[in-house]
Amino acid sequence: MTDRSPLRDLSAPPFATRHIGPADADQARMLQVVGYASVDDLVAVAVPEAIRATDPLDLPAAASETEALAELRALAAGNRVLTSMIGLGYHDTVTPAVIRRNLLENPGWYTAYTPYQPEISQGRLEALLNFQTVVADLTGLEVAGASLLDEATAAAEGMTLARRAGRAKSPVFVVDADALPQTRAVLATRAEPLGIELVEADLTAGLPDGELFGVLVQYPGASGRVADFRAVADQAHARGALVVAAADLLALTLLEAPGTLGADIAAGSSQRFGVPLGFGGPHAGYLAVREGLQRQLPGRLVGVSQDAAGRPAYRLALQTREQHIRREKATSNICTAQVLLAVIAGMYAVYHGPDGLRRIAQRVHRHAAVLAAGLREGGVEVVHDDFFDTVLARVPGRAEGVVAAARERGINLRPAGPDHVGVTCDETTTTGHLAAVWAAFGLPGVLPEDLDTSTADALPEALLRRTDFLTHPVFQAHRSETAMLRYLRRLQDKDIALDRSMIPLGSCTMKLNATTEMEPITWPEFAGLHPFAPADQAEGYLRLIDDLSRWLAEVTGYDAVSLQPNAGSQGEFAGLLAIRAYHRSRGEHERDVCLIPSSAHGTNAASAVMAGMRVVVIACDDRGNVDLADLDVKIERHRDRLAAIMVTYPSTHGVYEETITEICERVHRAGGQVYVDGANLNALVGLARPGAFGADVSHLNLHKTFCIPHGGGGPGVGPVAVRAHLAGFLPGHPLAGGGPVGPVAAAPYGSAGILPISWAYVRMMGADGLRAATEQAILSANYLARRLAPHYPVLYTGREGLVAHECIVDLRPITKETGVTVDDVAKRLIDYGFHAPTMSFPVAGTLMIEPTESEDLAELDRFCDAMIAIREEIAKVASGEYDRADNPLRGAPHTADCLVTDDWKHPYGRAEAAYPVPAVREAKYWPPVRRIDQAYGDRNLVCSCPPLEAYED
Amino acid sequence: MTDRSPLRDLSAPPFATRHIGPADADQARMLQVVGYASVDDLVAVAVPEAIRATDPLDLPAAASETEALAELRALAAGNRVLTSMIGLGYHDTVTPAVIRRNLLENPGWYTAYTPYQPEISQGRLEALLNFQTVVADLTGLEVAGASLLDEATAAAEGMTLARRAGRAKSPVFVVDADALPQTRAVLATRAEPLGIELVEADLTAGLPDGELFGVLVQYPGASGRVADFRAVADQAHARGALVVAAADLLALTLLEAPGTLGADIAAGSSQRFGVPLGFGGPHAGYLAVREGLQRQLPGRLVGVSQDAAGRPAYRLALQTREQHIRREKATSNICTAQVLLAVIAGMYAVYHGPDGLRRIAQRVHRHAAVLAAGLREGGVEVVHDDFFDTVLARVPGRAEGVVAAARERGINLRPAGPDHVGVTCDETTTTGHLAAVWAAFGLPGVLPEDLDTSTADALPEALLRRTDFLTHPVFQAHRSETAMLRYLRRLQDKDIALDRSMIPLGSCTMKLNATTEMEPITWPEFAGLHPFAPADQAEGYLRLIDDLSRWLAEVTGYDAVSLQPNAGSQGEFAGLLAIRAYHRSRGEHERDVCLIPSSAHGTNAASAVMAGMRVVVIACDDRGNVDLADLDVKIERHRDRLAAIMVTYPSTHGVYEETITEICERVHRAGGQVYVDGANLNALVGLARPGAFGADVSHLNLHKTFCIPHGGGGPGVGPVAVRAHLAGFLPGHPLAGGGPVGPVAAAPYGSAGILPISWAYVRMMGADGLRAATEQAILSANYLARRLAPHYPVLYTGREGLVAHECIVDLRPITKETGVTVDDVAKRLIDYGFHAPTMSFPVAGTLMIEPTESEDLAELDRFCDAMIAIREEIAKVASGEYDRADNPLRGAPHTADCLVTDDWKHPYGRAEAAYPVPAVREAKYWPPVRRIDQAYGDRNLVCSCPPLEAYED
Repeated sequence: MTDRSPLRDLSAPPFATRHIGPADADQARMLQVVGYASVDDLVAVAVPEAIRATDPLDLPAAASETEALAELRALAAGNRVLTSMIGLGYHDTVTPAVIRRNLLENPGWYTAYTPYQPEISQGRLEALLNFQTVVADLTGLEVAGASLLDEATAAAEGMTLARRAGRAKSPVFVVDADALPQTRAVLATRAEPLGIELVEADLTAGLPDGELFGVLVQYPGASGRVADFRAVADQAHARGALVVAAADLLALTLLEAPGTLGADIAAGSSQRFGVPLGFGGPHAGYLAVREGLQRQLPGRLVGVSQDAAGRPAYRLALQTREQHIRREKATSNICTAQVLLAVIAGMYAVYHGPDGLRRIAQRVHRHAAVLAAGLREGGVEVVHDDFFDTVLARVPGRAEGVVAAARERGINLRPAGPDHVGVTCDETTTTGHLAAVWAAFGLPGVLPEDLDTSTADALPEALLRRTDFLTHPVFQAHRSETAMLRYLRRLQDKDIALDRSMIPLGSCTMKLNATTEMEPITWPEFAGLHPFAPADQAEGYLRLIDDLSRWLAEVTGYDAVSLQPNAGSQGEFAGLLAIRAYHRSRGEHERDVCLIPSSAHGTNAASAVMAGMRVVVIACDDRGNVDLADLDVKIERHRDRLAAIMVTYPSTHGVYEETITEICERVHRAGGQVYVDGANLNALVGLARPGAFGADVSHLNLHKTFCIPHGGGGPGVGPVAVRAHLAGFLPGHPLAGGGPVGPVAAAPYGSAGILPISWAYVRMMGADGLRAATEQAILSANYLARRLAPHYPVLYTGREGLVAHECIVDLRPITKETGVTVDDVAKRLIDYGFHAPTMSFPVAGTLMIEPTESEDLAELDRFCDAMIAIREEIAKVASGEYDRADNPLRGAPHTADCLVTDDWKHPYGRAEAAYPVPAVREAKYWPPVRRIDQAYGDRNLVCSCPPLEAYED
Repeated sequence: MTDRSPLRDLSAPPFATRHIGPADADQARMLQVVGYASVDDLVAVAVPEAIRATDPLDLPAAASETEALAELRALAAGNRVLTSMIGLGYHDTVTPAVIRRNLLENPGWYTAYTPYQPEISQGRLEALLNFQTVVADLTGLEVAGASLLDEATAAAEGMTLARRAGRAKSPVFVVDADALPQTRAVLATRAEPLGIELVEADLTAGLPDGELFGVLVQYPGASGRVADFRAVADQAHARGALVVAAADLLALTLLEAPGTLGADIAAGSSQRFGVPLGFGGPHAGYLAVREGLQRQLPGRLVGVSQDAAGRPAYRLALQTREQHIRREKATSNICTAQVLLAVIAGMYAVYHGPDGLRRIAQRVHRHAAVLAAGLREGGVEVVHDDFFDTVLARVPGRAEGVVAAARERGINLRPAGPDHVGVTCDETTTTGHLAAVWAAFGLPGVLPEDLDTSTADALPEALLRRTDFLTHPVFQAHRSETAMLRYLRRLQDKDIALDRSMIPLGSCTMKLNATTEMEPITWPEFAGLHPFAPADQAEGYLRLIDDLSRWLAEVTGYDAVSLQPNAGSQGEFAGLLAIRAYHRSRGEHERDVCLIPSSAHGTNAASAVMAGMRVVVIACDDRGNVDLADLDVKIERHRDRLAAIMVTYPSTHGVYEETITEICERVHRAGGQVYVDGANLNALVGLARPGAFGADVSHLNLHKTFCIPHGGGGPGVGPVAVRAHLAGFLPGHPLAGGGPVGPVAAAPYGSAGILPISWAYVRMMGADGLRAATEQAILSANYLARRLAPHYPVLYTGREGLVAHECIVDLRPITKETGVTVDDVAKRLIDYGFHAPTMSFPVAGTLMIEPTESEDLAELDRFCDAMIAIREEIAKVASGEYDRADNPLRGAPHTADCLVTDDWKHPYGRAEAAYPVPAVREAKYWPPVRRIDQAYGDRNLVCSCPPLEAYED
């Protein structure tokens, strides 16, 4: 040890070395293949100088994993988790530990992607089908989707669904005055740009006179009241309007289903089915419709179809409804859903079964009934006679005092003006809590036991549930922890997630979701907080939100950030609303044209329409870039009405367009605002800042660039970042304040519960780490492009033939020559153990590949080897060595079941079907089904758990 | 809701309904098959009235999972985790989060059983081989085993190994005076009954004169000193003695390997390789030997062999060394190891690689060097010039004050008498800690940065490491978190654990390890405590230990419990030591005969020998019960020397012997003590209490009856419970006090870190739940026996043909008739997706099946269906329909690889090989290797990672 190293040279390797896949030596090999001497050289060519940031990001120095966890523990300690009896759509619940550990804390579930490739997604598709069955059964409606973002946005989707599906031409939508305040606020945000007139009414007095296209009833109401809305529904239907019921799933185990009572649509939250409060989210919203409306349903819908062997298989149904395909004709911009949370809610129902759920609901209700009896015994007026879980007490002038007294006893109640207090019971309520509440009301001597004997239930006899629910065997078979554990494992094993192999989905940025980032989200101090808890109980969260907002502003070059949007689509909507409100604030109400390049994500157009804008498409040139000439033409044509341009940068073609600053300038000169879609921000962080190179607004996808896992299709977080002149137009919230623009999500900070993930990522990477990640992502994409180019044409490139962080390989000439389709290649990749790249986006007949910085060289090479081997298989089709109709590509994916048969009839061998390259033998992924027939499922729509007989061979 | 349910009828279903598999309706069906009207009726017949407990257990009422977690959080809050600079073999370390979540917190790893069935254990066997490679490479010795219990017992095993392997006949074993205090104490406990004379000596002065069979050097020493023991080794070898080096693995990355310096044996702990402190354990001890001594190695050894296809495959090597086979001729009683912790330590090395480990060690060392320099600069004398991580400071009369001052600054130091303080650096040490330590010494102004520049390292040049280590590629390939995550998943997927299917191992009680029980063990307040932290910092632990001890005493009917033994074997040893000490305290030194029935576990005999007893075997009758006549003969023959009888109850044959109380009385009348082995306590809890029906001592296996998971072969906890007259002879500890008997484990409370598991189990089950679990275990075993009896002879039964909690099916007549062996059936069960039952214990040629209470009826039936289908396959061999030498039984297990071939040569079909029953298609487990050739591996012993070429096809 003569040449000792000083301590400063011995510090632990930074987290970035764990996050970034290739080690230094591997990076050098990759640079050699790409043909640059250093990463700096590569970046200097790849990224246009005009947009390059010169100064390093001003962020705190990178913390180690241990340090970051310690800081997060300190932030967690800044939150005080009191017993919440606030209600308003958020209820404490017991997440079964077996589900928390083996699902919510399990990368096999949380790192999975949206199940667009159904053959490798059968596990989560089955779990989502359970969720749909829960919702459909409990709401008494035939078709339920696989989750929306939250109750308020689900209600808004219900409103717009009613408008387009109903017969009535009226612009009026009637809203129950007893609807949740955040729901009313989100409805207002969504209604105004679309010209919908909201009319609030006390529906217990019947439907107000006049035409309407729909009505929303809250069942039970925010005040706790349970009202019979059958008369309202009849009146609405008589006037050609549709009925949306915003309903509490737990209450529905005791109360008759809204579908049975006349609702056409039901919306709500499944949060109280085992999903932690998380200061407001993420939770799975739901939407269900009666038979006949399913083609109008926004968002994802899981359905049953069959595979090539004729066996039942799950997949997303009726995909032609989606905004990816319908673009500006889409009826909704919803994209990311809340899959992980919907799966939890579904599993909660599987674990408890109908009897268990009913028992939980009865207990909740009995606590509320006894609570009310105690208040009455003490002389406190209880406003409603019929309620499920919430008691509204009238205490003239004393509300504030009662709430404060309860807080001293560790309980948050809901003040409802100066004279009323709401008290909501949930799964965790005990008689001890009731006693504390009584004491807070000044009634210390009430005894719950006596009241329990003498008090009747408070549910109206006419509304007691008589229809059955959850009769499918799956809700009976997994009641022991052992059985539940194995069910979760069995489903997980059917799927490919990031814990098995690279998921090279272009535009989706499937990078590492590090454990240290994930651990804090299930700590009780982050998981247990109600979104409307007093701010002084949420200081840790508020500090974390403040940090993260500042850091994201620094990274993007903007001046203000809102973390409220709980998906990228909502961020887009919020960003466009800000632009709209800005123009209006300057008196330029006529500015309503939004320019969108033809290559854009479909959500862009859909969001623009939702924000009351008219979409005008800009052509792209043959290199995939915005056609500046056409841009000029369109700007000229719409100059006075120009509101904005929405561009993705780097482009959806994976290229750094050289002209981006020019585009920004031209639009600005015409009075428009520039919206840069942040979907591809993973190619910019640390190198360029949209807010600095000309844009006015961006949304970010924290579930792409900032490491929130995809969760099988959600949760996402889609913050919106703006320059100073737009800061006053970020979304507000009725329970947390804000400017002239209303909320776009139910909770003030959206999916706050998962923000620790992105906080930890930025904290541990620091400026250098973030930049290094971006550089590696660019290098890796170019490495893939160079290795694949001799075998597949690479479609779009920028300077010196470089791509940005992803590359597109073109299958069209190959398909033309051989008949082998992009689908064949995607399915054949499953046999090689890989999730397919993005198919046919942004260009039909192509595959878009994004490696991200997290994949190491061995895995990149394994993927390239697979693609090259597949190309050789295609060549055998071309040469006639393989049969055109019956070859390993067309037969893919191959299940063990189809190979281990005594009756193999294909002209190619079993071994070449299953083990096309030696590496596959080491760790073979066996798909549970063969290729799935999409059309069959859409023709024969089944969207809840099929009877077991369907699986019989 | 007219007939409302009162709250008391609506409480959440107790945890017991999740722990116990069969629901009420299923239990009724099972009773029908077994032929009893109720569980009470069944138990009344099955369990002898003489032993039945009449009163319910006096335990707190069952808590819900939520309540138990809240109580555990309160206990956790009773611990104060200070920065530990105590050292003495326990060091704070950073468990990589990816390893914590995906290994330590993953039931796929922690619920696995010991890899006796190697074909379904390739994942954990590979992980253990990594561990062995780490130990062998770092110690510079050829063969390392797959973990021992802790450093102190590993050193003791090293001592006894030296005695039996060496040439010297002397009874003297020389111990380094600078050895860890707990190691010296455990050596003393182990030496005395065996007649070994321990001589402590300052080895820096050379070996003391005289004969000896071995010497133990601590490297580095407890005082921190790094001494060159080459001269000592030479002297020892010259006198025919062997050298045991107790060595710190992290130090060995910088210091020359003990094997290179002349050690024959190395022992130690791998704790600081990422394993949490846990108030003393569990951690993996290690033992390594030079070539030539491997057949003397106690405990498990993983080796490489090949499978039926000639491909490399792992399995436990040289099993004929084990006490299961050698019984009283065994050289050690070690059985349960610390697999889960050894796997963590191995993965820590995989994740960091040799460079990373060296860098960590350098940082630790630099901190120590700078610390010492600062002390010297402030005028404090540093005793040793050569050290790795520990600085011994001389502060005459001030030690207590310095330690107290450090504690005020949040740091625990080690007082070493009134004049010395030890300060140990570890992976988590920062310069901030150094500054605080200097301040505690009264030197507030020292600046670490300056010292870092001016201070040299303090490792002796002559001992700097020159030999390479961890050169195998596995220690380079998994450096990114993504790569590590996938490696863990890939290995896990090779194995069967409880998260896939029932593990029907007789005598092993593979029941649910509930998540709520597991969660607390990784909370920082339980995971972060040093075992020698002051008691006032461990109040939560001490309360938990006190609760659990009282509860276990209540359950077993004893008066006192020690939780120190960290495996069942150590509990046996401690129990026998108590008996020995008791007799001696009464002047009856001659009592040294231990009666053991021929059916006993092999560890019983081995433990008796270790406790200085002579084993006398008692015959069993043809019903498997203790032969009372033979018992009388042996008692008569050894009456004056009778020390004890060791019996297992219910017997290892799975039967409640009617004569147990009679046996106890006869032994007592002859002056002997009764040891009831608690291995089968799962059949007694809540129904009978050994301490009440006649026994004096039992050990329990918390990893069987009390839900600590098996972890792939450990950790276990083996508390010893005694009646009042033996309470004074429970194991003590030099750092925690105690009576005349010394410690049997390194830490005062053994594997304290996992005691929350058993605490939670008892707390959530309550008296009723525990009893119900036992009743269900008995019912399930009898249900299996009834279903299987028409197909396989059930070997031993008690009253009315009932078994206890397990049953033995006899393959011997079938083997005789058809040639199909118990091995064939065990391996064929893998094709059906099951782990085999216990093979050939306690009777060769049989299978012992224990269902436990946690398996639900569907899984029990799935297992029975598999066994019955296999019986039908056997019938086809008998009838000639199957070839005798080439049939699905002999060919089992079948890999996908062997089936998916274009060249299938067997006379039976592929589908019948892979999918013998339809249920298998739903969730097929594919073994990674075919049947493994045990003899080949023993002939060609390879016990560290083989080169990659070995895997080439």
